[in-house]
Amino acid sequence: MTAPLRIGIAGLGTVGGGVVDMLRRDGEAIAQRTGRPIEIAAVSARTRHKDRHADIKGLRWVDDPLAMASDPDIDVVVETIGGAEGIARELVTRALENGKSVVTANKALIATHGVELAELAEQHGVVLAFEAAVAGGIPIINNLRDGSLIRNVQRITGILNGTCNYILTTMWKKKCGFEEALKEAQEKGYAEADPGLDIDGGDTAHKLAILASLAYGITPRAEGIRTEGIRSVSLRDMEFADTFGYRIKLLGVAEKTDRGVVLSVRPSLVRKASRLASIHGVHNAVLTNSQSGRFLLLEGEGAGSEPTASSIIADLTQIAQGASYKPFGFPAASLNPAPAADPSQSAAAYYLRLGVKDQPGALSAITHVLEENGISVSTVNQPPSRQGETAQLALITHETSERAMQNAIRVLEKLDTVTEKPYMMRIEPDISEITYHPSRQPAANL
Amino acid sequence: MTAPLRIGIAGLGTVGGGVVDMLRRDGEAIAQRTGRPIEIAAVSARTRHKDRHADIKGLRWVDDPLAMASDPDIDVVVETIGGAEGIARELVTRALENGKSVVTANKALIATHGVELAELAEQHGVVLAFEAAVAGGIPIINNLRDGSLIRNVQRITGILNGTCNYILTTMWKKKCGFEEALKEAQEKGYAEADPGLDIDGGDTAHKLAILASLAYGITPRAEGIRTEGIRSVSLRDMEFADTFGYRIKLLGVAEKTDRGVVLSVRPSLVRKASRLASIHGVHNAVLTNSQSGRFLLLEGEGAGSEPTASSIIADLTQIAQGASYKPFGFPAASLNPAPAADPSQSAAAYYLRLGVKDQPGALSAITHVLEENGISVSTVNQPPSRQGETAQLALITHETSERAMQNAIRVLEKLDTVTEKPYMMRIEPDISEITYHPSRQPAANL
Repeated sequence: MTAPLRIGIAGLGTVGGGVVDMLRRDGEAIAQRTGRPIEIAAVSARTRHKDRHADIKGLRWVDDPLAMASDPDIDVVVETIGGAEGIARELVTRALENGKSVVTANKALIATHGVELAELAEQHGVVLAFEAAVAGGIPIINNLRDGSLIRNVQRITGILNGTCNYILTTMWKKKCGFEEALKEAQEKGYAEADPGLDIDGGDTAHKLAILASLAYGITPRAEGIRTEGIRSVSLRDMEFADTFGYRIKLLGVAEKTDRGVVLSVRPSLVRKASRLASIHGVHNAVLTNSQSGRFLLLEGEGAGSEPTASSIIADLTQIAQGASYKPFGFPAASLNPAPAADPSQSAAAYYLRLGVKDQPGALSAITHVLEENGISVSTVNQPPSRQGETAQLALITHETSERAMQNAIRVLEKLDTVTEKPYMMRIEPDISEITYHPSRQPAANL
Repeated sequence: MTAPLRIGIAGLGTVGGGVVDMLRRDGEAIAQRTGRPIEIAAVSARTRHKDRHADIKGLRWVDDPLAMASDPDIDVVVETIGGAEGIARELVTRALENGKSVVTANKALIATHGVELAELAEQHGVVLAFEAAVAGGIPIINNLRDGSLIRNVQRITGILNGTCNYILTTMWKKKCGFEEALKEAQEKGYAEADPGLDIDGGDTAHKLAILASLAYGITPRAEGIRTEGIRSVSLRDMEFADTFGYRIKLLGVAEKTDRGVVLSVRPSLVRKASRLASIHGVHNAVLTNSQSGRFLLLEGEGAGSEPTASSIIADLTQIAQGASYKPFGFPAASLNPAPAADPSQSAAAYYLRLGVKDQPGALSAITHVLEENGISVSTVNQPPSRQGETAQLALITHETSERAMQNAIRVLEKLDTVTEKPYMMRIEPDISEITYHPSRQPAANL
């Protein structure tokens, strides 16, 4: 057994506390596996005396987490404070400058200041690890970084936010509206009191930016990503989608195209029979497609104490074993800073829902506008409406561009017969469909 | 850029040839990522001049692969010859003895001589890597070894043989028998001319032994695993299973119990709605469950040139970056050599199919025997039979032990009314059902 890896844990919430719990419980087994114990040299949080799940008795308490950055008794700083700025950023920066490796679950920080932090880590020959920052317990970061996940990633499709997936699953299961499902999520601890970062898609954008950086060697930057949340998704949309053969999921999608990497976060329709349609509750999933049409799916818990702590321990284990790698796989200085390509030029089929006056000619007026914009309609569903009510109709288009859809909507919402702003969602191609690629040679090792 | 990692590739079939192809195509991108080029220093195969897919022009040819083990111009030997004995074993042994790291796709070798080879690797401070040996392109080995997959693995359930999964998928899709589906698999190159190792479950047992070793720290040994192949699965069974709400899959299952680790390979019934039921064709999947009820699913291509080569390159990438780990995670000398626990003592529900004389009293005679053996019946299906034909009936039991089932079958097959040897399959509990574990603390990072 070599000398222990001494870690300082800054932040003792769900994630940091989970690391304490796990090391107390499994520390011995982990040491046996790695040949090197992981020792908690210090802990720090906003409030020392507080009813918390993790048992910190006997651990050295540090009032100022920043002190960990220069503490000679700490080898690795575990940052679970969160936030792109403030203490978290300062602590990670200083620790790296002082030649300490850092393990963090902070997706906002990595998606905002990832390049400068990675450069620091590379300069000082230390590790900056963030497996826990994306998709909780799913080992997506390390596998993307070292290229073992899939070669030549063409496309990444992710359900990356457990809060949103829980809300969407609950709406459909309980046949309730968005607000009621959000309230339930908050009561169960699956959504925060201020849920904006989750339900407006910002958290998914942070995670997508990190995944795209690792897969394509581009600068991680959530800022420019076309991001749309789930507030506007109604139970009505889910019912229409069901009629058409789909479910609704909040997807983060990264795709390599001739125009560059296209990134988007938005509620989307996925075929009921597709893999992603059956990812329920707080689970996350990441589907990677290779250029040659292969796909690999990883599904697991996207958050929570144990899964996220598990990912932090995995990073610590690699550091304990002397791992050395560039935080984004490629050298930080070589990451391509080109902004993400415009997703509105990508071709896709769309779902469109409209509130219309229940009068003859409404549908033909709508299809006329669509046709004028070069959009052809595949399927229409117009359920009977009750007297005096606004009628709701929904339709599915053939493949078109988002720009054409936006142009059409601008005309549609001015129509006399259209009483509500039309709502559109993209339809995701069913990339999880398996296609066989018979090889020229017999495949001996199936 | 540091000096290149020089590899010698022994075997140029689907896997070895795939490595050559991939390095020719993606070598530069891989070097950019790792900071160290991977250079093919030599290749070797049974026949030099042969129409093969991989282009070996310009590569140094070595007639005797064993020469690679002592070649000073080779840092890592990539063994893709296959087989538990013979040249493959000798080459890997000698290479490790000479202080060269080895990357192999050879599951039979690792599942048979894994411990002695791992000891050699540890003694000489080199790496023995075998990501490609299990589930082709799915990164299961490295993630299990470093513990990043899931902490405290309770159970591993795998669809680990693409040939069998292809045959079972085809039988159901085309409503054909086993022989016809096997023939199609052979024509497409998904099954070998001598398919025994695949369809009799031996290949799955090799892979299961390796996974169980990494997860539980036990000696990898395929030998003692209760192994049953898919030759006896009929289309009739699939139809009965469908009626009961199930699909049939060949599963490798490893489970931690009070009696030790239980290992088994057998065709099993899985709920139609379960994750594993929808793994089609040559795809593989590995489902790991933690003690706390969490699960993680990995699904991807189980074989073929590109996926398997991809896993070999992932291993090489880690070696190029200076990775150092014990082949089985735990030190080889500490692996527990206790034999696998007896699976016949595990409780499960069973499927039982019988050919019976179409006469009154047949069913009651059968249920009587079952009851006498303490087995209670859940559902029976007895479709009408045509005049003169043997009637087929199938039933599902409540939870019982395999031993009780075997005892009952021994009596049943002697009954006058039973005309064929009864065939039973285990019913897999639906472990992929998601259960919510509300945490005490709000989970901030869903």
